[in-house]
Amino acid sequence: MSLRAASTVRRVLTTGILFTDHYQLTMAQLYYRTGLADRPARFEHSFRAYPDYGTHQAGYAIAAGLAPFVDWMQHAAFDDEAAGVLGALRSGDGGALFGGDFLDWMRSVGGFGGVSLWAVPEGRVVHRNTPIAVVEAPLVVAQLLESSLLNHLNYAALIATKASRVVEAAHGGSVLEFGLRRAHGFGGIGASRSALIGGADFSSNVGISHELGIPSKGTHGHSMVQVFMAIAGGELEAFQAYADVYPDDCLLLVDTINTLESGVPNAIRVFEKLKAGGHRPVGIRLDSGDLAHLAVRSAAMLNAAGFADTSIVLSSQLDELTIWQIRNQVAEEAPRYGLDVDQMLGRLVYGVGSRMATSDGDPSFDGVYKAVAIRDDTGAWKPAIKISDSPDKLALPGVKSLWRVYDERGIAIADVIATGDEDLSRRPLEILHPMRPGVGRILDDARISAIEPLLALIVERGRVVAGLGDIHEARRRRAADLDRLDTGVRRLVNPHTYHVSITRPLLELKQSLIEEHRAR
Amino acid sequence: MSLRAASTVRRVLTTGILFTDHYQLTMAQLYYRTGLADRPARFEHSFRAYPDYGTHQAGYAIAAGLAPFVDWMQHAAFDDEAAGVLGALRSGDGGALFGGDFLDWMRSVGGFGGVSLWAVPEGRVVHRNTPIAVVEAPLVVAQLLESSLLNHLNYAALIATKASRVVEAAHGGSVLEFGLRRAHGFGGIGASRSALIGGADFSSNVGISHELGIPSKGTHGHSMVQVFMAIAGGELEAFQAYADVYPDDCLLLVDTINTLESGVPNAIRVFEKLKAGGHRPVGIRLDSGDLAHLAVRSAAMLNAAGFADTSIVLSSQLDELTIWQIRNQVAEEAPRYGLDVDQMLGRLVYGVGSRMATSDGDPSFDGVYKAVAIRDDTGAWKPAIKISDSPDKLALPGVKSLWRVYDERGIAIADVIATGDEDLSRRPLEILHPMRPGVGRILDDARISAIEPLLALIVERGRVVAGLGDIHEARRRRAADLDRLDTGVRRLVNPHTYHVSITRPLLELKQSLIEEHRAR
Repeated sequence: MSLRAASTVRRVLTTGILFTDHYQLTMAQLYYRTGLADRPARFEHSFRAYPDYGTHQAGYAIAAGLAPFVDWMQHAAFDDEAAGVLGALRSGDGGALFGGDFLDWMRSVGGFGGVSLWAVPEGRVVHRNTPIAVVEAPLVVAQLLESSLLNHLNYAALIATKASRVVEAAHGGSVLEFGLRRAHGFGGIGASRSALIGGADFSSNVGISHELGIPSKGTHGHSMVQVFMAIAGGELEAFQAYADVYPDDCLLLVDTINTLESGVPNAIRVFEKLKAGGHRPVGIRLDSGDLAHLAVRSAAMLNAAGFADTSIVLSSQLDELTIWQIRNQVAEEAPRYGLDVDQMLGRLVYGVGSRMATSDGDPSFDGVYKAVAIRDDTGAWKPAIKISDSPDKLALPGVKSLWRVYDERGIAIADVIATGDEDLSRRPLEILHPMRPGVGRILDDARISAIEPLLALIVERGRVVAGLGDIHEARRRRAADLDRLDTGVRRLVNPHTYHVSITRPLLELKQSLIEEHRAR
Repeated sequence: MSLRAASTVRRVLTTGILFTDHYQLTMAQLYYRTGLADRPARFEHSFRAYPDYGTHQAGYAIAAGLAPFVDWMQHAAFDDEAAGVLGALRSGDGGALFGGDFLDWMRSVGGFGGVSLWAVPEGRVVHRNTPIAVVEAPLVVAQLLESSLLNHLNYAALIATKASRVVEAAHGGSVLEFGLRRAHGFGGIGASRSALIGGADFSSNVGISHELGIPSKGTHGHSMVQVFMAIAGGELEAFQAYADVYPDDCLLLVDTINTLESGVPNAIRVFEKLKAGGHRPVGIRLDSGDLAHLAVRSAAMLNAAGFADTSIVLSSQLDELTIWQIRNQVAEEAPRYGLDVDQMLGRLVYGVGSRMATSDGDPSFDGVYKAVAIRDDTGAWKPAIKISDSPDKLALPGVKSLWRVYDERGIAIADVIATGDEDLSRRPLEILHPMRPGVGRILDDARISAIEPLLALIVERGRVVAGLGDIHEARRRRAADLDRLDTGVRRLVNPHTYHVSITRPLLELKQSLIEEHRAR
């Protein structure tokens, strides 16, 4: 037990408030020394581009990661241990980098009790260059939150987005997430959770599945068959042993020796005994070779033996495009073996590992966290702006709100960013291209069936004021949002561009700030 | 404190022994029911391909992740909580999936106390299709270890390998790791650690840097300049405030407004005051635009102002190829601005984030964990084999050892896999291609300067018998191994293929097993 306790302490150090970048703390001390630390500030989390996997790209993203992030924020504390770590860091002249007075003050601040957080709830569709999470807090606290917020929310959205695409490709076929062995360390926990938010049906990860209240799934690996081959018979004996222990959960991996010549025939022999005993065999899993072809051939064999209702689980380097291709090939080959295409496609289940858990093709989400406003001496919000080299990357300044406009069919046609105090019930509603002045649309009541605010108040001055924990709600939100998303935007390859627009007051604020800074 | 304790308990559940795949536990119960659970078994960790980033690929990999994995293994326990989680899982017929007798027995096993582990130490160069970690334990324990072993060791090797390439591209220039914000959740902790093993000089991640005894590094972000622009002056005031607080650590981010027209001139003004006060300015950071061109132009301005000894830190989507290209461009442009190329290249520092922390281009390491032998009723090792559809993927069976052969120049020329009891001091030494029978080499003493076993006994029946904790040793091992690696194998693009060979006794064992299984 003492060893275990030691391990826990270490975890708290690396996963607590010091799970952050060094420069957040140098900036914190600077704000403390210059008297700016307590100034209320607003920061926004947004992403600049949808994941681009090289040969294909996403037309939307799925928000995720909020509940684990809020959990982290509530428990991260600037305690004596954190102060001790910072107190030991040296400056270039050999003295202490962080002063004792600053560290004492940080201990008095303690953590993130001063934070208010608005966010688009987990599971919802979100779009580039819109504020999907907004933090208001004393400057030093809002700044210190950056690294962990980005870490939690970027990665989760990345995997939820990938999973949503995989689930779309599966066209109603079950998707099992089992990427733990290639996921990035304990990031694998968030990968499983995010994949479930993105629409995966189950995960193989036991711990997080339990925590989320979704049963973990899995059967056996090649090693079990190998062990029997080495010392206790062969594949048939391995399958029979599995069926004896799990008569009502019998899903057999059939490719350890030879799928069609050994695995499927042996599975059928075992299934026949199960059936005779009153049990219903679950199915087989294929993990190598030409999965589409082997699925069709295996299905023909299973059907001939009277097991047409068994599942065929496919795995091995699957992602959305591979699943799409496999389904096409199956549809083409199935009739040649006398199989009904719909029945054949309907029995397929997809086990998706590495490529979903690491977002293969684009393993990082382009999310940023930018200061957008800070209160001046009079208490008024002063917009912050970054005049970078590229006008396209110019963040929208000031306190803002985010809305989604639905057309007369109930389909989302634009996300609209407005200034904080704007009333979007006015008609006609003018919405403008964020980068190209003069490009825009004017929408009247006939074109708008609904307009909805997307940001919800989640944390108010450190107190959680919205329900966060239920992953089932997040899964329902995703499904509902996809139903209301244009099919062109959902396309797996070369998707149609979703419109993100701004209002005229926001455009004018941005232009006046640029002019003001250029004039200096 | 009570909230914090609750959070810790939750972490132990998801990061403890249930940080695993469901099928490990169904197999465990099967081994228990069939009386195989206590059989001594050997499993090997190997990887099938070097990371391939699409336009470039690695010719070697760097072993990493061993210390965190062993730490996990020592603290993961099958306790009442774990038994409760499994006890709640349902079978297809609605009954308990796991029997109470099995769960009681698992509690009595407790954890990984029966494991012996041999591994190639962290930091060492490793090659594909060689056993880089070997587990010997009772079958149920060796099997249960799979998911976490692969998770820990695959990801760490992936990032250490990427970092090693980035460090090679930097040609002696410092590399700072700061990928936390785009890393995969708490996997970011392992990313930083692995990047340091791979040769990165420092990390921005505060917690893990402290734990490893390497000081974290960082300066300030754009937000600090934006805050001053909004309410307390502008870029110059921000820089001056930073210099006042950090006179001996003054590294300024100069691209918030305009690098050459605002950032660098303002930095120079602040540096002049520092210099007058007896301090040495550290340098500037460029984070957008044409980094190579801006570095040259900034250097010319800094030199003209008498700050030729300041660093220029480059960041923004860097990886090994971008660094290589930037250095080429700098070497080409520097003379046009009257700059010495070597001095110019020598002042560059590379801040590398997302692309190193996520191994952009190939975010998962192709590592597998395979049963290779199990003791039969007589106590003899029986080799296990998987006769898959592809002969190239056929794992080498049985208890084995791994050796590295150095030629007369002291350069590594082959990693050789032998059977467990072989004496490799015999000369001449015949080594064979693992896939193509008849292809091989015969080495005599004149060709061999040294032959070294690569696997070290790390854990003996649950007790750690080798030092694991010192990252500095791992960093030295990497540097020493790279010095002894052919430069062609180290090439960043299209590297020369390193030889992995087997001995004749191992070839004969493999062939006899295939024949035996085909004969059945």
